[in-house]
Amino acid sequence: MKVIRLGIAGLGTVAQGVLEILHHNHKKIADRSGFELQVVRVASRTAKPDVDLLGAEFTTDLGALIADDVDVVVELIGGEGRAKTLIEEALAAGKGVATANKAVLANYGAELFASDAVTPLKFEAAVAGAIPIIQAIQQGLVANDFYRLVGIINGTCNYILTAMQEEGTQFTDALATAQALGYAEADPSFDVDGIDAGHKLAILAGLGFDGSVDFSELHVEGITGVTGQDIRYAKELGFCIKHVGIAKAGDDNSIEARVHPALIPENTLFANVAGVTNAVLVDSDAAGQTLFSGPGAGGSATASAVVADVVALGQTDRTGGNGNRPKLTLLPIAEVVCENYLRIPVRDQPGVFADVASALSNHGISIEAAIQKGATDEVVSIVILTGSCADHELTQAMAEVSELTQIAGEIARIRVENLS
Amino acid sequence: MKVIRLGIAGLGTVAQGVLEILHHNHKKIADRSGFELQVVRVASRTAKPDVDLLGAEFTTDLGALIADDVDVVVELIGGEGRAKTLIEEALAAGKGVATANKAVLANYGAELFASDAVTPLKFEAAVAGAIPIIQAIQQGLVANDFYRLVGIINGTCNYILTAMQEEGTQFTDALATAQALGYAEADPSFDVDGIDAGHKLAILAGLGFDGSVDFSELHVEGITGVTGQDIRYAKELGFCIKHVGIAKAGDDNSIEARVHPALIPENTLFANVAGVTNAVLVDSDAAGQTLFSGPGAGGSATASAVVADVVALGQTDRTGGNGNRPKLTLLPIAEVVCENYLRIPVRDQPGVFADVASALSNHGISIEAAIQKGATDEVVSIVILTGSCADHELTQAMAEVSELTQIAGEIARIRVENLS
Repeated sequence: MKVIRLGIAGLGTVAQGVLEILHHNHKKIADRSGFELQVVRVASRTAKPDVDLLGAEFTTDLGALIADDVDVVVELIGGEGRAKTLIEEALAAGKGVATANKAVLANYGAELFASDAVTPLKFEAAVAGAIPIIQAIQQGLVANDFYRLVGIINGTCNYILTAMQEEGTQFTDALATAQALGYAEADPSFDVDGIDAGHKLAILAGLGFDGSVDFSELHVEGITGVTGQDIRYAKELGFCIKHVGIAKAGDDNSIEARVHPALIPENTLFANVAGVTNAVLVDSDAAGQTLFSGPGAGGSATASAVVADVVALGQTDRTGGNGNRPKLTLLPIAEVVCENYLRIPVRDQPGVFADVASALSNHGISIEAAIQKGATDEVVSIVILTGSCADHELTQAMAEVSELTQIAGEIARIRVENLS
Repeated sequence: MKVIRLGIAGLGTVAQGVLEILHHNHKKIADRSGFELQVVRVASRTAKPDVDLLGAEFTTDLGALIADDVDVVVELIGGEGRAKTLIEEALAAGKGVATANKAVLANYGAELFASDAVTPLKFEAAVAGAIPIIQAIQQGLVANDFYRLVGIINGTCNYILTAMQEEGTQFTDALATAQALGYAEADPSFDVDGIDAGHKLAILAGLGFDGSVDFSELHVEGITGVTGQDIRYAKELGFCIKHVGIAKAGDDNSIEARVHPALIPENTLFANVAGVTNAVLVDSDAAGQTLFSGPGAGGSATASAVVADVVALGQTDRTGGNGNRPKLTLLPIAEVVCENYLRIPVRDQPGVFADVASALSNHGISIEAAIQKGATDEVVSIVILTGSCADHELTQAMAEVSELTQIAGEIARIRVENLS
């Protein structure tokens, strides 16, 4: 039986997950794929004598993975500099590469894939962990023109928002719980500010729209501004609040690609994706609306995707066309058209609602629903669901509203994503 | 650019969907796959002059598809006899074959795949329409040992049960609506009796457990016995009723494979799969619990899967190991262990609950929850959620209960599938 020889860079939880899978499911994978996976070398800064390397040689030298006895390099060291160099060197040496490194792909993907029409670089593990969403887009749904991808692609954010919704807690408390459970880092900003989701969206958007998307051009918002109040009011209007990455075909040759909290109709399957679970919803012309959900992180879940990539790399005749793709033009966020949720704290005086409505109306923004919620003392919240409008119109209208004398605090605004 | 030449058998809605996809997305698919798909011949009993054959030749002779100028035969004529013969002849002539024919695969899959270790026969469209679940199991989750597959794999059943749940209608009314909307056939038995789901489960179970499963050995129940009452009582207990196919690893070398209505915890994503939508939940050792949902039927959705298969067949170096798989041993349904929902109509007399509890207890069956529901006159329903027990124990206990003098009607029994 043909043997695919692996060099693994890194010895963290994902690398350990890969070793465990190869230990337990070695024979099954061989029966299914038609070849054996053999780890010949593991490179990491520090040895971990407790980890069973399955007979592989240990080295602290990453360069030792670019050797004649390695067919596929598995890049699991994370970070950007050394990982990018390793990937480049492995590809230049004719190796297949499997990586879980979303940051490198989001920032340097166009460059890495530019060298050849078909680059043997796979990255299923970089988006949505165990969910085979990359393969679904590239192969299972290859027949389709994609209209929209919407992803819950950061488990930390979804855990926090789910806890806020189900337990009525505020952001800081939910974050503290997430940290205690290991779902959020001590410095949570990479997750809660939307950077991680942005990296993943850049990858998804490029795949879905047959081009490359640069992370730095995305509109990225996190969830630190979402309050328990917003979650309750959204629910009254029939919505959940989820942190999502959205990529959408534009009217012309541009696409939308944005990461932010969004109101999602609560009667949809997508709105019911709870806790650390990830999900990607795909709207396309032939397949209609499909949804893929599962664990978005964790050593063994991520390793499942890495091993799938290694098996795919073992098949020499690959799906073509992942290289040399055009850079996609992103619609500026100011031009994005969508419905919006607004929460406007005001002193409860006669005429205040009329003034707010008039400011919106002056920018061509209609009001689809409105509820007035009493709060402490004489301050109340006007909660509004707007009709579809361009972001820049809403931004201007909000600026005008905030100048009204009755305004008693910051206006909260969250975009709406209807999934129909 | 390499060209893959297609011969399409059939000119129904799925075949038309394939032609439409190739018309609209021809260039995209070529860019992504690295080769062009060209339809050279379409064979069907009757010509349809309105359908654009994209320049292909029309013939009424199926045999004309097994010609030198055809690389891949797309079998979309349905039925069993002629379709099976066509598939065999195409494979014998060295063609790749893509089929949407679940009946042929469920009944003759072992035979069709026995000839070679790697048979170029693909069937993504045969299970769950547009959802790339076959590929997910064979490739995206190739690293995993599977514990369980649970599928909502018949859209007609899910539509009817969803309507009964959401609108409080009875089976016959919901069926009539489904028929009016085109979601159910004039003779609905193939769907509502579970045959269609059984065909799909036979295919899924074989894939998930690396063997072959014969449809005739499955335990198959439909949904005609589910009442609006059961749906309401199940909801009181925290469950939805779904028609599911379940394949599960057994304790020894056997597997469970069964199709029946089941109580599903209502707070799960799976329970929220509504209407004609299909979904497959996969429990596995590394990837954990993943879920795939989408349209399970319809011309273009099914065609999306067919075209994905054709593209995969165009890659000559295929995933190995789909042939020569062992026949799997199925655990007899009598030996299956699960929790159960029971609705027992009784005349409301003192001691009746004690008698029922005692009959269950005599067979080692515990009661996890029980509610007594008043009904017309003096007849009430005792609704019970049992602890886990073997099917044959429950069958015997039910027989004893039905002999009690207070019993006022047929006992309803629905199995429970907890998804945790």
